[in-house]
Order: sequence, then C-alpha cells, then structure tokens
Amino acid sequence: MRIAVLLYPEFTTLDAVGPYEVLSRIPGAEVVFTAAERGPVRNDMSSLALTADAALDEVDSADLLLVPGGPGTNAQLADEALLDWVRRVDATTTWTTSVCSGSLLLGAAGLLEGRRATSHWCCLDELSRFGAEPTGAERVVVDGKYATAAGVSAGIDLALTLTGRLAGDTTAQAIQLLIEYDPQPPYGAGSLAKASPEVAAEANVLLFG
Amino acid sequence: MRIAVLLYPEFTTLDAVGPYEVLSRIPGAEVVFTAAERGPVRNDMSSLALTADAALDEVDSADLLLVPGGPGTNAQLADEALLDWVRRVDATTTWTTSVCSGSLLLGAAGLLEGRRATSHWCCLDELSRFGAEPTGAERVVVDGKYATAAGVSAGIDLALTLTGRLAGDTTAQAIQLLIEYDPQPPYGAGSLAKASPEVAAEANVLLFG
Repeated sequence: MRIAVLLYPEFTTLDAVGPYEVLSRIPGAEVVFTAAERGPVRNDMSSLALTADAALDEVDSADLLLVPGGPGTNAQLADEALLDWVRRVDATTTWTTSVCSGSLLLGAAGLLEGRRATSHWCCLDELSRFGAEPTGAERVVVDGKYATAAGVSAGIDLALTLTGRLAGDTTAQAIQLLIEYDPQPPYGAGSLAKASPEVAAEANVLLFG
Repeated sequence: MRIAVLLYPEFTTLDAVGPYEVLSRIPGAEVVFTAAERGPVRNDMSSLALTADAALDEVDSADLLLVPGGPGTNAQLADEALLDWVRRVDATTTWTTSVCSGSLLLGAAGLLEGRRATSHWCCLDELSRFGAEPTGAERVVVDGKYATAAGVSAGIDLALTLTGRLAGDTTAQAIQLLIEYDPQPPYGAGSLAKASPEVAAEANVLLFG
C-alpha cells in the first residue's frame, strides 16, 4: 500500500505526522513525503523542516493520499499545478484524506462537491465555497472514499479509523498500543464547545495575532 | 524561552512532534532542533527525515530540553559525546523532559537516579538499570524538574501539562483548542492494561518482528 503525504510551505507538522505515525506502521505500507520540489519543507512555525523525498512530478499514484493543513493552505488554494496533482493522484486512490485546513485543498481541487466534510474550527465554514457540506459535530468525517479530520491532532483519530478499515481492528488496536494512544489531556478545552470564552479568545489571538 | 529538541537516527517522529506542536506555540518560545550534525535526521521508519538546524556543539543551553525515544535510543546509550551534551544542557534547564524510550537516555546520562520516571511499556523496566524508579501507572511523571512521558503520543499530554506550569492554564487550554486536542480514539487499546492479549501479541510482532 502506497501512502503519499503532501507537504507545502507553512504546513502544520502534527497534521502530517499524527496520521503518519499510525499509517506507516500498517504492514506493507510504503510512505512517500512529496512536495513541489524534493528537499526540506519548512513548517508553519518556521522552526522545523520535514524532507520531501519526492517531487510532485515523481508521484503519479497512491492508495492513500494525505493532505495536511496549516496557515500555508491559503497560498496553495490558487496553485493550479498543485491542485492538478491532487486531482491526478485522487483518481488513483482508495482513500483521499485531509487533516485540518487540508480539506480546503481537497475542496479547491473539486473533490468535495456535495460531500460532508470537516476542517479546523477556524475555517470550517469555508468548505461551503467548494460545494461541500461543513460538518462540525464529528471529529472524523467519512463520505465515500473521502475522509476529513478536524484540527491538527484529529488526524490521529482519522488514521486509526482508516487503519481499521484497511488492515482490520486488531492491527489498528495493535498500532494504537504501539504509540500508546491512551490520551489523558490535563485540560478539557480541546473543542470550541468545551473551551471557555476566555480560552477561545486567547486561541484566536494565538491564531490570528 | 529556548526549547532544544534532540534528534538522532531512528527516533520516533511523533515523540518529538507531539510536544513540539504544543510547546512551540507558547508565546515567546524559540525551538531549535539539534543533532550530532546539522541537516536531515532519518526516523525509525526511514520514510521521513526532520531537519536539525543546529549541531550539538552549537547548543549549550536551553530552558527546556526534550529528548524523544525510538528504536534508535539503544545505539545512543553508549554515545558518550551525546550523553555529555545532555548533561551539559541539563545543567542549564528549568525542565528536562523525555518521551517514550527517551527517558533511557536521561537515565544513561545519570539524571534520573533516585527519581520516579516512565517510558514506553516496552522498556519501562530498563529504567531500573539507571537507578530510576519505573512508574508505569501514570502517563506523565514529574519528579523535580524531570518530566518523563510514556510511549509516543503521551508527549502531547506531557507538553500540555508543562505548558500549564510555564504559561498558565488559560494559555495551555488555548493551545489545546488550537490543535483541537479533543481525542476520540475509535478503539480503547492504548495501554497494556486496556488492550486484549491478542492485540498485545500483535503489537509485539510489529515492534520486534
């Protein structure tokens, strides 16, 4: 099973790495990180770069495509070469997936029309621009072969869900045990519905300055 | 606040990236990824490399040191130059932290003697070799300025806990909301206590082949 992970400048690292840590452990999985050009791709905080081992024109198919989000998504929405690549690879996939604002890229590529999809809370409504039906109540939304996750850390839940379908429940659970995904957050502020107005206000400041 | 993240060959990516995604968002945080040499450092699955922007000899202090784990830990236990670096930086930190088998490196550096500490379930007992007291019941163990997390994904919980102490509860919760850390794993097999014997057996096969 070939998994292609798209990278682009100012992506959010955990969007890509959370699902990767699960999916790459499926027996037989081969993962390729890909970007416009081979080499390091700097993330949204600028303090970390991940290496793309393949350029987009070296990857023409995948069983699973993973598109992360991040502040860099906006700049990519108008990149026709990138959107073309997403469409071309999507034509070959069993699963086309996104985390966070990565779903906007799937939308801009025309893949979510008439479909239920989710995104980070900051840009959930934008999905409507692309003919998708924004779905905020679920952390992972599966519609046909399109699986979209809410913000950043939701990609881990997405990947475990997909691993169950791809490799069976026992393997998915074994990978959950390998990465000790027994979450015990010290706070309960992980969604807009659960966070206080004060916390939401500070999150907006951190996000938009 | 300066945060140094140690990289070495065959580290587990989420060990480093989970805490990074939280800690790097603390206002005023500066993160530097560091390794024996500058440049890409390949992870445990070999399909991803993270860039070290600084060599170890370029980093002589940090407010927070983060040591990830992974299959590569074992090879580093005998690397005196690396252990010396850990000791030197530790002498300058407010917090010295690890995820997964990273705690074995803190132990080998002599930093956990007489302290409670945790690790991935696969190597929890090994902590005793270094005079530490293995503590398997807690996902995050804080003893003095030493904070160790259980396997892989536990680093996210560790980082939120530390963020609360470093920047206050509201900021920690705002970062939790930013990364939408409202975990909803589709399975409940994230710890040895919760996984079935069949799942634990498969996890051991995935881990040790």
